[in-house]
Amino acid sequence: MKFRVEVNVMPHRSLHDPQGKAVCRNLPNLGITGVEDVRIGKHIQLELEASSEDEARQKAEMSCKKILANPITEYYEFTIHPVS
Amino acid sequence: MKFRVEVNVMPHRSLHDPQGKAVCRNLPNLGITGVEDVRIGKHIQLELEASSEDEARQKAEMSCKKILANPITEYYEFTIHPVS
Repeated sequence: MKFRVEVNVMPHRSLHDPQGKAVCRNLPNLGITGVEDVRIGKHIQLELEASSEDEARQKAEMSCKKILANPITEYYEFTIHPVS
Repeated sequence: MKFRVEVNVMPHRSLHDPQGKAVCRNLPNLGITGVEDVRIGKHIQLELEASSEDEARQKAEMSCKKILANPITEYYEFTIHPVS
């Protein structure tokens, strides 16, 4: 079976996010008001083959733990979608 | 009213994604098999004040068009969540 995994990897809330702060500060200059916070992370799409949704979940979890997210500075969350 | 906007900014499908390819090639070395494609983009969380969901949608659209996404190389999609 084929699955699509949508992963979000974000900086821990306790961490300062300079990129997000820079965007947030500049939005009023572009005429966009009322934006109080901006946080920027990674969105990763995996297409993978697995015998079951459980196995797809394990592969996604291992991918996040081993290469996609740095546990010291980031947290991750993902959703799994059967493709075929 | 306060809203949280979850934005995904991804490289156009037609574009080569070297970062994603590098991750995809390395997953088997980490014992993760069956991953056929990896695409890496940005996940951006906005917290904004707006008088209605429509106004929140307009602010999110303008933010994407003006600063968050490069229309030549990227596409964006977002979901809006009332916070309070």
